[in-house]
Amino acid sequence: MQITIRELAQALNARAWGDQTMLISGAAEPGQDQPGQIALAMTPKYAEALRPGSAAILSEGMDPEAYGLAAAIFAPRPRLVMAGLTRSFDPGPDIAPGIHPCAVVDPSATIGADAAIGPFVSIGAGVTIGARARIASHVSIERGTQIGDDALILNGARLQHGIQIGDRVVVQPGAIIGGDGFSFVTAEESGVEEMRRSLGKRENFTPQSWERIHSLGGVEIGDDVEIGSGATLDRGTVRATKIGSGTKLDNLVHLGHNVIIGRDCLICGQVGVAGSVVIGDRVVLAGQVGVSDNITIGDDVIAGGSAKIFSRVPAGRVVLGNPAVEMTTRLEMDRATRRLPRLAATVAKLQKTVTDLIEKA
Amino acid sequence: MQITIRELAQALNARAWGDQTMLISGAAEPGQDQPGQIALAMTPKYAEALRPGSAAILSEGMDPEAYGLAAAIFAPRPRLVMAGLTRSFDPGPDIAPGIHPCAVVDPSATIGADAAIGPFVSIGAGVTIGARARIASHVSIERGTQIGDDALILNGARLQHGIQIGDRVVVQPGAIIGGDGFSFVTAEESGVEEMRRSLGKRENFTPQSWERIHSLGGVEIGDDVEIGSGATLDRGTVRATKIGSGTKLDNLVHLGHNVIIGRDCLICGQVGVAGSVVIGDRVVLAGQVGVSDNITIGDDVIAGGSAKIFSRVPAGRVVLGNPAVEMTTRLEMDRATRRLPRLAATVAKLQKTVTDLIEKA
Amino acid sequence: MQITIRELAQALNARAWGDQTMLISGAAEPGQDQPGQIALAMTPKYAEALRPGSAAILSEGMDPEAYGLAAAIFAPRPRLVMAGLTRSFDPGPDIAPGIHPCAVVDPSATIGADAAIGPFVSIGAGVTIGARARIASHVSIERGTQIGDDALILNGARLQHGIQIGDRVVVQPGAIIGGDGFSFVTAEESGVEEMRRSLGKRENFTPQSWERIHSLGGVEIGDDVEIGSGATLDRGTVRATKIGSGTKLDNLVHLGHNVIIGRDCLICGQVGVAGSVVIGDRVVLAGQVGVSDNITIGDDVIAGGSAKIFSRVPAGRVVLGNPAVEMTTRLEMDRATRRLPRLAATVAKLQKTVTDLIEKA
Repeated sequence: MQITIRELAQALNARAWGDQTMLISGAAEPGQDQPGQIALAMTPKYAEALRPGSAAILSEGMDPEAYGLAAAIFAPRPRLVMAGLTRSFDPGPDIAPGIHPCAVVDPSATIGADAAIGPFVSIGAGVTIGARARIASHVSIERGTQIGDDALILNGARLQHGIQIGDRVVVQPGAIIGGDGFSFVTAEESGVEEMRRSLGKRENFTPQSWERIHSLGGVEIGDDVEIGSGATLDRGTVRATKIGSGTKLDNLVHLGHNVIIGRDCLICGQVGVAGSVVIGDRVVLAGQVGVSDNITIGDDVIAGGSAKIFSRVPAGRVVLGNPAVEMTTRLEMDRATRRLPRLAATVAKLQKTVTDLIEKA
Repeated sequence: MQITIRELAQALNARAWGDQTMLISGAAEPGQDQPGQIALAMTPKYAEALRPGSAAILSEGMDPEAYGLAAAIFAPRPRLVMAGLTRSFDPGPDIAPGIHPCAVVDPSATIGADAAIGPFVSIGAGVTIGARARIASHVSIERGTQIGDDALILNGARLQHGIQIGDRVVVQPGAIIGGDGFSFVTAEESGVEEMRRSLGKRENFTPQSWERIHSLGGVEIGDDVEIGSGATLDRGTVRATKIGSGTKLDNLVHLGHNVIIGRDCLICGQVGVAGSVVIGDRVVLAGQVGVSDNITIGDDVIAGGSAKIFSRVPAGRVVLGNPAVEMTTRLEMDRATRRLPRLAATVAKLQKTVTDLIEKA
Repeated sequence: MQITIRELAQALNARAWGDQTMLISGAAEPGQDQPGQIALAMTPKYAEALRPGSAAILSEGMDPEAYGLAAAIFAPRPRLVMAGLTRSFDPGPDIAPGIHPCAVVDPSATIGADAAIGPFVSIGAGVTIGARARIASHVSIERGTQIGDDALILNGARLQHGIQIGDRVVVQPGAIIGGDGFSFVTAEESGVEEMRRSLGKRENFTPQSWERIHSLGGVEIGDDVEIGSGATLDRGTVRATKIGSGTKLDNLVHLGHNVIIGRDCLICGQVGVAGSVVIGDRVVLAGQVGVSDNITIGDDVIAGGSAKIFSRVPAGRVVLGNPAVEMTTRLEMDRATRRLPRLAATVAKLQKTVTDLIEKA
């Protein structure tokens, strides 16, 4: 795949400089670029390694002549340019069009036009696969699940029965959608119920075993969603677990049963969301955040890395820490805790001073 | 699958009211119920959306006539009724009886009566599969592993060699049982050993590489255990890693080598238990709890969300926080930490007052 | 597999005692040893259960005659002896030499001499598999990926396109190498960018959606690396994500795009490392550690269990807690926090004393 500097600039909606007919076949870091690759040098520091006669992406205000470049493209917002640039050069996965002879497809399944289905894929009864969808090797899709147009389901993903997936969704390798919820109940009040009622005190220790609550609901996933490698999204108990359009989930994220997530959220690596949590639109949960069951997180909330959320978070709030509180409060608390050993010493000394003072008085 | 209100009430061991011949084929939330579905309205708030002429599950004390219902079933303990109800209506996975032609089964394996084995399943030498066990697509079962009667092993689960699994065990998709333990040793004292000995001080930085300790032990899993999607349970070094009967593990739980867990425990999402930990009966570890290696957790312990357990926990204790301490202590500490910046200001002011007092004196 | 006590002692580079012709076929804990197994009794406590007439591994200074042993091997460093011993008796996975008839191998792939490839393995175009490499069932290896000599890739592992894996690497079941990075950008400044700039304050809540930055880089893994069950290693954006030789990753570890890890590190269970982090040599991150994006961790750093690292850590540092600070500082802070409710009471009392003093004065 080769395109000219002119075509690339047009694809990126950006301004080109120099030899616009130069052919480009990929991108690299400055100094590591092979002939035909464009170097990414959006900061002066990166630009130091640029090679004369090469092509580069620069930020506005940088001077291509100073680096002796043959051609350049100017990026008004560098990371946004990266989106267009990497899309232009991504060859994508290798899945041959049509159905691989080593796939097992139920005769009642509907496969969309120009779909590609790899080896060792199993597709159950009543499944619907959209047009141009690509299903990589070793994927299983169970009874009645529906997958939208242009979806990309990568190797070994598990789509259990009764799942709905929108258009252009990307499911990374090994993601598991629609496992059963973790929902168990004891015949009498359990230790957890007692502890929540008493805020930590326990008196009753009768042995009991757990009855399973089965998961009858499915999972509904909107359009343009991304599900990370090894993420696990449990089905709902009675109604479906839901992910709004445009939301992106990173690797090893865990969503419990009945969780509802809004649109355009970012749920980062290893986040865990317990059952029946409701999350608004444009929420960002950084890596390893945890959310307790049955709580609500408003629109536009941002939770910093490893924040542990035990209670409702109002819209627009930025939270941090364990337990999660407003970020500015948490930073103050952390500073004060770091000085706490010194504070304790100050208090001890002060106490002595006052005792002396009283004795003298 | 259709059953009458009378049959459903009997299955739930609950009292029926109204038209007991009404046919029910599923359950739904009030207002979202289709004809033939029973609405789940165990609290007055949920009951508001009930439709006249429909059937519902109510709590004792609620009045079916007030909602204009045609039939009702009374739930003495709502979540317990949910267990029976959802079991009644769960169609379960689609695995055709017998061995799928696209499965690879070693001739020395023993397959129980009425077992169902899906496509792309591989079963190794000397494996034993119990009666009526169901093995979904893409599962691998290695040499000598034994699976009990009525077990359900879902798609893509990995059961390595020498594993023993009891009756009625459910393994969710992608769970990995019997990977090698994470056990490495250096020729001389390692930095970790030095740091543990010195409580954080280090002097010796000689480069060393890691020798692998192989895992010869297996994994032994009792009856009625559930293993969540993507959970990883490592095999033991010399003896087996063990899970007692009735214990439930949620998604992405990680158990290190040699871990022993008792009966009827709940180990929630993303919990990590390091090597050689011993956990008693009826222990509940909430989501994202971490347990350091080689420690003991007594019977009936409950650890709150994200508790990080670094030392022995006596039986019956409720713990919370990082590091985990008794929940009541932790809540006090958290309250005091929130007030800490104010406390520091109070101390500073007090110090000034006392200084002034001394100067005046 | 049977070897004599003499051969075993030679393999372990250790001293033998007693009947050196005794045949050994495995190892067990004392009291659980079957005939032909050697008991592991490196501490006097374990040795109590030793059976007269059996063989055991002892620590230097222990007396084999006192336990009535027939043979013994002395372990100068017990865990190091465990490495050799368990290696001697590990039968390893069952993968028949050659290519299983139910594998799908692209004709352009190169398979090394004496490699073993199991059932339901798919191998893409241009893939290279080293000599004596063993690929277990259900593994997928995509276009152009290279695997070194003597590598062991266990069941259901996913090796996406353009990955390089060194010699003697072990990939545990279900590990995913080369999923796409979690990298998204908004057209205008996002909430996260605003929050980082303002340290927690937000004013702009314009709805925006996320553009995907594709991952063009691969993953480069050195020699003698181990990757745990269900671990996820994302590919780089432009250059490769890199793991140095001798480094070991445990189960469910998550490495973001562009991460660079040095040699001989131990990255324990459920650790999460965000994008573009650079980690030195011989670093140990204990279970559930989290590392924020774009930071640097020096050589020989040790981070204790669940440490959350938000900023640069200099070489040789031992850190702990959330946020991670030096371990000795953290232990002091934790002790002081535990006494904080008492300190607050002391201050309140002191304040009253001083007020009384002033009123009297």
